[in-house]
Amino acid sequence: MDSRPRLSERAKSIPASPIRKLVPFALAAKQRGIHVYHLNIGQPDLATIPAGLKALREFKTEVIRYGLSQGDQALTAALIKYYGRLGYSFEPHHIVVTTGGSEAISFAMMAIGDEDDEFIIPEPFYTNYNGFAITSGVRLVPITTSPESGYRCPSAEQFAEKITPRTRGIIVNSPGNPTGAVYTREEMERVAALAREHNLYVISDEVYREFTFDDVKAVSILDIDDLEERAIVIDSISKRFSACGARVGCVMSRNNHLMEAVLRYAQARLCPPALGQVVAAAAYNDESDYIEESRREYQRRRDMVYNRLMDIEGVVCEKPEGAFYCLAKLPIDDAESFCKWMLTDFERDGHTVMTAPGPGFYATPGRGAQEVRIAYVLNCDELEAAMDCLIEGIRAYNER
Amino acid sequence: MDSRPRLSERAKSIPASPIRKLVPFALAAKQRGIHVYHLNIGQPDLATIPAGLKALREFKTEVIRYGLSQGDQALTAALIKYYGRLGYSFEPHHIVVTTGGSEAISFAMMAIGDEDDEFIIPEPFYTNYNGFAITSGVRLVPITTSPESGYRCPSAEQFAEKITPRTRGIIVNSPGNPTGAVYTREEMERVAALAREHNLYVISDEVYREFTFDDVKAVSILDIDDLEERAIVIDSISKRFSACGARVGCVMSRNNHLMEAVLRYAQARLCPPALGQVVAAAAYNDESDYIEESRREYQRRRDMVYNRLMDIEGVVCEKPEGAFYCLAKLPIDDAESFCKWMLTDFERDGHTVMTAPGPGFYATPGRGAQEVRIAYVLNCDELEAAMDCLIEGIRAYNER
Repeated sequence: MDSRPRLSERAKSIPASPIRKLVPFALAAKQRGIHVYHLNIGQPDLATIPAGLKALREFKTEVIRYGLSQGDQALTAALIKYYGRLGYSFEPHHIVVTTGGSEAISFAMMAIGDEDDEFIIPEPFYTNYNGFAITSGVRLVPITTSPESGYRCPSAEQFAEKITPRTRGIIVNSPGNPTGAVYTREEMERVAALAREHNLYVISDEVYREFTFDDVKAVSILDIDDLEERAIVIDSISKRFSACGARVGCVMSRNNHLMEAVLRYAQARLCPPALGQVVAAAAYNDESDYIEESRREYQRRRDMVYNRLMDIEGVVCEKPEGAFYCLAKLPIDDAESFCKWMLTDFERDGHTVMTAPGPGFYATPGRGAQEVRIAYVLNCDELEAAMDCLIEGIRAYNER
Repeated sequence: MDSRPRLSERAKSIPASPIRKLVPFALAAKQRGIHVYHLNIGQPDLATIPAGLKALREFKTEVIRYGLSQGDQALTAALIKYYGRLGYSFEPHHIVVTTGGSEAISFAMMAIGDEDDEFIIPEPFYTNYNGFAITSGVRLVPITTSPESGYRCPSAEQFAEKITPRTRGIIVNSPGNPTGAVYTREEMERVAALAREHNLYVISDEVYREFTFDDVKAVSILDIDDLEERAIVIDSISKRFSACGARVGCVMSRNNHLMEAVLRYAQARLCPPALGQVVAAAAYNDESDYIEESRREYQRRRDMVYNRLMDIEGVVCEKPEGAFYCLAKLPIDDAESFCKWMLTDFERDGHTVMTAPGPGFYATPGRGAQEVRIAYVLNCDELEAAMDCLIEGIRAYNER
């Protein structure tokens, strides 16, 4: 008999977060007195929406009670108002409030997928989808897109090749993390047509909805006709209102049958966090310019980061149209090695920059080897200094 | 091709909460103007710990940020202090803070159990374990205990009969929901010996730890020698500090290998709720009499409820020694029917009482048919009035 009982096989298969695995090197750099510009995580520096913080300060309660499993009525009503302002009409039973967008994706995957069922997803994609898939016991089937083509939506033929009897849905995320790509109406229609033809769901992660630049507007899966039974929207307050730690998101669909299943999963974990919902309800009721101001700020940053990148010989990067990320192919041999080296061996007047290596955003081994994700979550002055480090770092790395 | 895409098989297998399924009848009673005493859910009426509410009021932040996946350092430090006061020493890496005890149990199940692996659990047990097991893809294997024997811990032989090559652990919950039973040291040692002999883990849900009555003290799995690699503690602030909605719990174990696996699950969902952790850290740092005062209040209520029950001819109920529940066998033919009838057909001066039917707490069909769980989560005056309703209701139900 073993003296130490074993773990589950699936526990061993969860990858350590590729974004977080460089953290020890960043800590070591800081201990050497180096200032690290953190462009590696999607944690905005923008202040949380004031209406949300005010509601929290003014929140009075004797008892922090369990709430409804589907979310507090005040938040559901605020979500319906917010979606109404965008032109979409929802009923309360179309919405289940979740513990962040993370839980929303897990609920959606579990409600429609059994063990080893498949979800097709264009790669590069948000790393944590891997964790949600493993936890939910489903498989992600990637379709590779490339920096050379601006990480556009795969063709209908590319999707069709991946569809098997186990395929349950297609996951899209536009505006996208890590690419910043915003799918056109034609691209969303393409995904929708495949879903109709092959009897699939579309899980549309729209947490970056408002963060689009120039004249680009995000097309929601809700904009596509004749998809009501198949469209599942994942949403979250984390980025929209800069409240990542509040852990409030939601699953939305007009497929009542599906939402009943999601609600059963929600009941199994009792309720979403009460205090985060106080912030969220106030945020969604707020009609100030907060979101638009955030959008403009991200656009300024996108312009700056993109322009600086374009000055580097050999960089491949389409101008990102949304979210607050830029995934660029750099003139380096190995992004994992480069990102680590920037923390262990580089400094510029006591500063360096931390970015996220591309391979972590691909499910296909060997992909993204020269790509690096830059999250523009610092103000323009700091970003400028961080880009100075990055540019000098690339040169020094290649001359080392 | 179906016009409506199908759901997963597992989504269909999640039971609707047996505690919540009578809710529509309670709402209908209220609409008829009847006051319903809610003794059906484990939502304490006690005020949330003042230190926690104060910390929330005084919480100042510009940005509600992502925190550490394992929980905020301030909370981990406070947990270590709290456990230190109880005589247990822990290091930060022994603790992963979770979104309520619910997530803690799911993480523990997933870290040690693969699909269809088995966990032995004495029944009746906390209904939501079913949901966590389905979500985690594992099986609960019940051992039936009875009101006649005070729902004591099964014998070593009863456990041994249920152990198969797929058994990964034993789940215990003492003080217990719904029984109020508190396992003796001998009973905890019995479970520990089985775990050692058969190479199993023990998941010990200790969220009611301090709520024990008269001279009874809860024995923690941490009190058992030579079990460090096998003992997993589930804990939560929900009941201890009356903060169910904050959604803060934790998994704790001195098995470092296990905690690394739990941490990977925690990383996959980013972080636990930031605002609940503010409440939790202050609560665990507080050394006031809050917990002891809560304990005394629950003891008064237990005495009252138990004495009133004992006046009913034909009731079978051992005096509960902990938690804030009493599971009693009543002189009625069918608890499901009775609990519903109390809402649809009964009133006493415009009042009735809602309790939870026994079958929902058993995995074995047909069990608990005459049992009802009473959660003593109202003050003594209200409880007294609720018990008046219950007693008169039993008489009227049997004479109907």
